[in-house]
Amino acid sequence: MSSVRTPDPNPGWLSELALEETRSRVPILYVEAVPVRLTPEGVVEQVGVLLRGSSTGEITRTLVSGRVYHGESIRTALMRNLEKDLGPMAFPRLPACPVPFTVAEYLPMPGVSPLHDPRQHAVALVYVVPVTGDCEPRQDALELTWLTPAEALSAELRGELEGGRGLLLTQAMAHVGANLA
Amino acid sequence: MSSVRTPDPNPGWLSELALEETRSRVPILYVEAVPVRLTPEGVVEQVGVLLRGSSTGEITRTLVSGRVYHGESIRTALMRNLEKDLGPMAFPRLPACPVPFTVAEYLPMPGVSPLHDPRQHAVALVYVVPVTGDCEPRQDALELTWLTPAEALSAELRGELEGGRGLLLTQAMAHVGANLA
Amino acid sequence: MSSVRTPDPNPGWLSELALEETRSRVPILYVEAVPVRLTPEGVVEQVGVLLRGSSTGEITRTLVSGRVYHGESIRTALMRNLEKDLGPMAFPRLPACPVPFTVAEYLPMPGVSPLHDPRQHAVALVYVVPVTGDCEPRQDALELTWLTPAEALSAELRGELEGGRGLLLTQAMAHVGANLA
Amino acid sequence: MSSVRTPDPNPGWLSELALEETRSRVPILYVEAVPVRLTPEGVVEQVGVLLRGSSTGEITRTLVSGRVYHGESIRTALMRNLEKDLGPMAFPRLPACPVPFTVAEYLPMPGVSPLHDPRQHAVALVYVVPVTGDCEPRQDALELTWLTPAEALSAELRGELEGGRGLLLTQAMAHVGANLA
Repeated sequence: MSSVRTPDPNPGWLSELALEETRSRVPILYVEAVPVRLTPEGVVEQVGVLLRGSSTGEITRTLVSGRVYHGESIRTALMRNLEKDLGPMAFPRLPACPVPFTVAEYLPMPGVSPLHDPRQHAVALVYVVPVTGDCEPRQDALELTWLTPAEALSAELRGELEGGRGLLLTQAMAHVGANLA
Repeated sequence: MSSVRTPDPNPGWLSELALEETRSRVPILYVEAVPVRLTPEGVVEQVGVLLRGSSTGEITRTLVSGRVYHGESIRTALMRNLEKDLGPMAFPRLPACPVPFTVAEYLPMPGVSPLHDPRQHAVALVYVVPVTGDCEPRQDALELTWLTPAEALSAELRGELEGGRGLLLTQAMAHVGANLA
Repeated sequence: MSSVRTPDPNPGWLSELALEETRSRVPILYVEAVPVRLTPEGVVEQVGVLLRGSSTGEITRTLVSGRVYHGESIRTALMRNLEKDLGPMAFPRLPACPVPFTVAEYLPMPGVSPLHDPRQHAVALVYVVPVTGDCEPRQDALELTWLTPAEALSAELRGELEGGRGLLLTQAMAHVGANLA
Repeated sequence: MSSVRTPDPNPGWLSELALEETRSRVPILYVEAVPVRLTPEGVVEQVGVLLRGSSTGEITRTLVSGRVYHGESIRTALMRNLEKDLGPMAFPRLPACPVPFTVAEYLPMPGVSPLHDPRQHAVALVYVVPVTGDCEPRQDALELTWLTPAEALSAELRGELEGGRGLLLTQAMAHVGANLA
């Protein structure tokens, strides 16, 4: 399960050209995470949603998300992308069980499926990940907002999530047994 | 999901007579837990198994286990029994998802099913629970032994678990993706 | 896993008095099922909901539901209750995996938890069960209605389900990956 | 969730050259299936294992397995590969829930992880799939053997499965609650 360590400092990184070509050939594997804060009894108190500037200049909401590199394990990819989006002090608790709560399928054509990614056919393994430290988003993520489960499930909030990811948020809340009424 | 709090200090406790009568009428609901220690990436490094003196004087191995009381939530019952068997400083991390990795069915007649409890028909919801603190078993539990997944899966160790719980240990290791070879 | 067969024709049945007494002592174990019709690829096309006359004379909606008897396996209890509520020609396909998609906790006091049962503290293992035959509800169930997932998820329909079971319907649809938008 | 249909008769198919290049760039997404025969109550009676001629001329055992094509849904890929390996009359029952029981990670270097694929870094979503019809393997699969769960779990049989897939067989049997003793 551990990742492969090679002398290459970026073994899984691809040039834009190579990535674009690859995206036209095969589904691209991603990991995604819904960060949560738990009570000691494991009840979800807060759900973390990222505010991110999209490529078209709009502000949209999204989840922790990133590609699995060649030679990289799922666990390492999840850890790397959690650190990329939440910063080094978030102290995520990766689950003991490597099975995702849902498999998200994004197609490049809008309207074909509930989930949509204009760049590619992507398949994401999606996890609920408790975090215990301080989250300081880096890179293009502007802000992490903590919401109650009820707020995360509001139709308005779900509609703001890019690519149809409001569905993933509802599935995550159903998975943890939150009150969906 | 939260437990009910009433003035009665032991709302779910039953006299031996009432418990025996109840055991002859309905299946009794239990929670069980396999304590584990995880790496930051969520890989199971160690598995906790209890050494316990049985009622017949023999020393047997078992898991964290206890009844769900009337009016008590699953999460509260799990927390209470983890503290009963691992002490107050174990700091268990209850899972966000309340679905067990297996449902264990114990029948009073030996040989009918892989799992056996001479006292009763019991149905247990079984969880893998990471612990981060110091475990100091109390009550009738004599000792907590930490094993590697490979040690926990040895035929000898599994055979020492009371009631056929070696099966639960194998299912737990399969669930977390441990190498079962 | 198989049920126990004894000469007693109703080994798990209890008198009203014994059942009432038992309900005051321990949580009572139930199984519940959400019947579905699937396409060959496993996509849920229809969801079955029961229309049932409640004890107070009202018409309410509910799911397949029943107690697990003493000495009875989960699988046998599920099969028995599916036949009780859907008739002998429903041909349910019980899942290979005995883990429920959710564990439903009903408390006797209203408002304490999302799920409520005025008679008792009940804990139900809830399954999605594909059926392939003809469903003809018997007993007190008046009618089985087949709905699309979208219809099953409407706020109005969910509100008609007794004991807060609209929550279970949403969790079931999230579990099977239905579009919850 | 449905697959995309385009005029191209083989939209996801790649030339050997393009596939080889792609394999050096990203993890390749697969679906795998453990075919089973169930009793009406859902208990696994038999497990199907393929006998296949490997590229080096050896006879090895394997599971139903194949790549997910670009633009193809997980469900369609699973159905297509089940038909490829079991024939058109197997009548597989795809699960209502699209979450696999395990995520299998194959690395090209032997010894790094329990699962190994010399051609590539592959990530497979693995499912238990009940089949109800007649299985007649086509293509390079020579034979489908039906085994009892106990036979499937023998150390000898598990060792014959290519790429370390004996692990997947054990995980599948743990998932369905088979007796692993």
